[in-house]
Amino acid sequence: MDLQGTSFIGAARGTGGAGEDRAVNPVSGEELDPVYHAEGEETVEAVCRLAAAAFVEFREKSGEEKAVFLRTIADEIDAVEEEIVVRMTAETALPEGRCRMEKGRTCFQLRLFADLLEEGSWVDARIDHADPDRAPVPKPDCRSMWRPVGPAVVFCASNFPLAYSVAGGDTASALAAGCPVIVKAHGSHPGTAEIVGAAVRRAVVKCGLPDGVFALLYGSGRTIGQALVKHPAVQAVGFTGSRSGGRALMDTAAARPEPIPVWAEMSAVNPVFVLPGALKERGEQIAEGFVGSLTLGVGQFCTNPGLLISGSEGRSEFAGEVASLAAEIAPATMLHEGIASSYHGAVDAMTTKKGVEVLARVEAEVGKNAAGAVVLGTSVDAFLTDQSMADEMFGPATLMIEAGDEEAMLGVAESLEGQLTATVHATGEDREVFARLIAVLERKAGRLIYNGYPTGVEVCHGMVHGGPAPATSDGRSTSVGPRAITRFTRLVCWQDFPDDLLPVELQEGNPLGISRIVDGSRIES
Amino acid sequence: MDLQGTSFIGAARGTGGAGEDRAVNPVSGEELDPVYHAEGEETVEAVCRLAAAAFVEFREKSGEEKAVFLRTIADEIDAVEEEIVVRMTAETALPEGRCRMEKGRTCFQLRLFADLLEEGSWVDARIDHADPDRAPVPKPDCRSMWRPVGPAVVFCASNFPLAYSVAGGDTASALAAGCPVIVKAHGSHPGTAEIVGAAVRRAVVKCGLPDGVFALLYGSGRTIGQALVKHPAVQAVGFTGSRSGGRALMDTAAARPEPIPVWAEMSAVNPVFVLPGALKERGEQIAEGFVGSLTLGVGQFCTNPGLLISGSEGRSEFAGEVASLAAEIAPATMLHEGIASSYHGAVDAMTTKKGVEVLARVEAEVGKNAAGAVVLGTSVDAFLTDQSMADEMFGPATLMIEAGDEEAMLGVAESLEGQLTATVHATGEDREVFARLIAVLERKAGRLIYNGYPTGVEVCHGMVHGGPAPATSDGRSTSVGPRAITRFTRLVCWQDFPDDLLPVELQEGNPLGISRIVDGSRIES
Repeated sequence: MDLQGTSFIGAARGTGGAGEDRAVNPVSGEELDPVYHAEGEETVEAVCRLAAAAFVEFREKSGEEKAVFLRTIADEIDAVEEEIVVRMTAETALPEGRCRMEKGRTCFQLRLFADLLEEGSWVDARIDHADPDRAPVPKPDCRSMWRPVGPAVVFCASNFPLAYSVAGGDTASALAAGCPVIVKAHGSHPGTAEIVGAAVRRAVVKCGLPDGVFALLYGSGRTIGQALVKHPAVQAVGFTGSRSGGRALMDTAAARPEPIPVWAEMSAVNPVFVLPGALKERGEQIAEGFVGSLTLGVGQFCTNPGLLISGSEGRSEFAGEVASLAAEIAPATMLHEGIASSYHGAVDAMTTKKGVEVLARVEAEVGKNAAGAVVLGTSVDAFLTDQSMADEMFGPATLMIEAGDEEAMLGVAESLEGQLTATVHATGEDREVFARLIAVLERKAGRLIYNGYPTGVEVCHGMVHGGPAPATSDGRSTSVGPRAITRFTRLVCWQDFPDDLLPVELQEGNPLGISRIVDGSRIES
Repeated sequence: MDLQGTSFIGAARGTGGAGEDRAVNPVSGEELDPVYHAEGEETVEAVCRLAAAAFVEFREKSGEEKAVFLRTIADEIDAVEEEIVVRMTAETALPEGRCRMEKGRTCFQLRLFADLLEEGSWVDARIDHADPDRAPVPKPDCRSMWRPVGPAVVFCASNFPLAYSVAGGDTASALAAGCPVIVKAHGSHPGTAEIVGAAVRRAVVKCGLPDGVFALLYGSGRTIGQALVKHPAVQAVGFTGSRSGGRALMDTAAARPEPIPVWAEMSAVNPVFVLPGALKERGEQIAEGFVGSLTLGVGQFCTNPGLLISGSEGRSEFAGEVASLAAEIAPATMLHEGIASSYHGAVDAMTTKKGVEVLARVEAEVGKNAAGAVVLGTSVDAFLTDQSMADEMFGPATLMIEAGDEEAMLGVAESLEGQLTATVHATGEDREVFARLIAVLERKAGRLIYNGYPTGVEVCHGMVHGGPAPATSDGRSTSVGPRAITRFTRLVCWQDFPDDLLPVELQEGNPLGISRIVDGSRIES
């Protein structure tokens, strides 16, 4: 398609007027066509009005109808895979294979939510029958389920141009819930966003849905991003990005007259603990697996392992192994200049801290946004003295912590902030310390991993990609997997309604054949 | 028991030092013994430390063990019913029958959560099996469920001295989840709180649970209430009360370095719409039911119907009926002086608004905290011109709105803020306008009631006692019924864990026999 460089505002395209910008090829530094036209606050008003109007109709669509919409979006994205690959590789420096895999994941997510809608039980229908003869007062008939909350705003992630951007996990789960979505594009991959936005728009038209079901806005996060989160029509926000960016949105949402949930997935250092038995038994193998996880995608994953904690025995060999494996990994270009310079700044800051030594640092040419792997080392005492050592260095850098004994290891675990993941390598002989450690880590992380590595977030029913603050804004949910849908819902109860005036999910005869809780017991279709 | 007038801080009693206070009999104005000793901020620190320590052990308790604890609390409360009735009637002016009914409801709630824990499926266990042969990368084994979030703070409600206070719905659901609870007593019924607090404490001892599982603090909301919500160990808050009080807690919680959820149930006017067909068919009957709901418990329920909207035809007869029925209800004493004076102030303010006429106002003797029913009337135009007409008058007062036609009625519905409930009276001939109206009201309320009245919140699986802000802080949940438990939980995922290191709920053989979602399909035990 010919990229136009303008926003999608229902059936129309934006006219800009609030600035111009272009994508930059992070490898060459070359500016890419076309110019992208930023929208201003008046467009926010128009877009929110369209979304609110669309919600009235869209929320009444059946699960089948919404499933068709999600499958149509996936099909439209599949149809433009080659175009996506060309533009995405130029905008992000991500290799072709990764682009194709992320496209696959994006479409898989859309179809997984379609499956969920077709099955239908996700609404968690609960029915209590009336008892008119109960004393002292009759018991009413009460029936409740999840319903869509209203228009949602989704902020594209810089590090997932497809799977957590225009038609990514947040958009898929919000649309599945029945919420119109207003997407705020990320400045580093506007062309990829436009190609996907056009695919979504084609699906809206093909499915005959109201225009306001989807919008894609180009513009500044500080102006239109904030204005979107403040707008009374907006009822939920999805965000993947920096802690400062997420916090700004959380604060804005919390200060509204009617606060709304912000589902922000921010930062984590994803600690990996290697217990003594595991280190003895397979230290080399762990070093290899760890460095693979650390350097995957130039370390640009929120699940990147930024802390590696092990005991003293065998530590120097293990550290040497990790360092030498990391030193062999060729530097690669990061997503954009901002990420690359933040990475180098964070690594520089960490190396100057008292008690931190450099075990490996792969130098990358400056000016080309390239980054090499970095392995730093410190002691538990130094780590516990300086809380900033637990700060994220977004990229392929990790801090190895030498823990003299079990208590020291537990002390590190206790000191940690909320995390997306926590990993433990153990064997049968580590059993006792494992139990104590995992009891601490369960309070710190959304996902606990045994003898594995944190990168690679499986899209499945059992996944939790979330975790206590500050890893996310709200550790009660997950941004990956079907459970993500309830982030965009709220509970509604119908009391004493005639059967034909109830939503089908709650009608006595269970016409959809879904699994429900009836008078306190689960009843299959 | 001899009331001591001090807080419960684990196994110890408080020593006060931050002020003294006494309960007041709202009928006589007499001060009641004993003196209650307020705690200061240093006690908050001690209590939170105890709760955090207790959480480590309490969170590992099985559903069976937590169920025994909840049942023991209920039994201990049952055993002191007579004592509760004597003190509660003196502190609150609530009639004996209401005290006994509320005691019954409190114990019913505790036992309902015990049932839920014994059944066990509430954790929403989801299991995805590994596929080591999947290309391009093996699929890991992922298993997840709800886990307790950490120590919770519960603020006692002035209007539910038992069912939403020391061992009420918030406490029951937090303990059921596995969270220690720190209760902040309400100043208007400290003795009732002490009797129930002692019952909970006896249950803690009988069940051999860590002391920090329960605390009950006397003191100022502005000092210890705020300090509790700020404390890093506290992970969730339950509150029932005024909009200003709830908002203050929400703002404090949102400003924390790690924000936590505040489940605040605040204010609502619970509109009741009477459609033309229903008014024609059974206007008198509706007037009678409405006035009963309006004046129940001197109007001191969050579900009290503060707005009554009907069409023009037959309106004067209907208004006359409502007014004359309300005029027959004898005034009664409110819970405390603060509520009574707020009520009179709110009614006075409403009657001075432009376009508001007084249809009935039962005068009550001033100085004895008594309140009489008030029925006011206005037009849709006046109502839509002055948003403050939708403000809550907490007590037995309602504003009748005359809507000339359907569109006017829909305009009123559209103008409303978030509500706990919305009620519609209709017949077959109202079908079309009913559908349009309910579509608007579903976006405004947590519970929709057909041909009924909003007071009387059934404790059952299908209940939703919640609703969009500002009725509550967060419309995604309910404070009544088993679903309330997840307010005090977060999701945790175990990846690739050996079976014997998993929580029993997630073990392959399903030893608890609970309902789970396995590889995307629900599997019964």
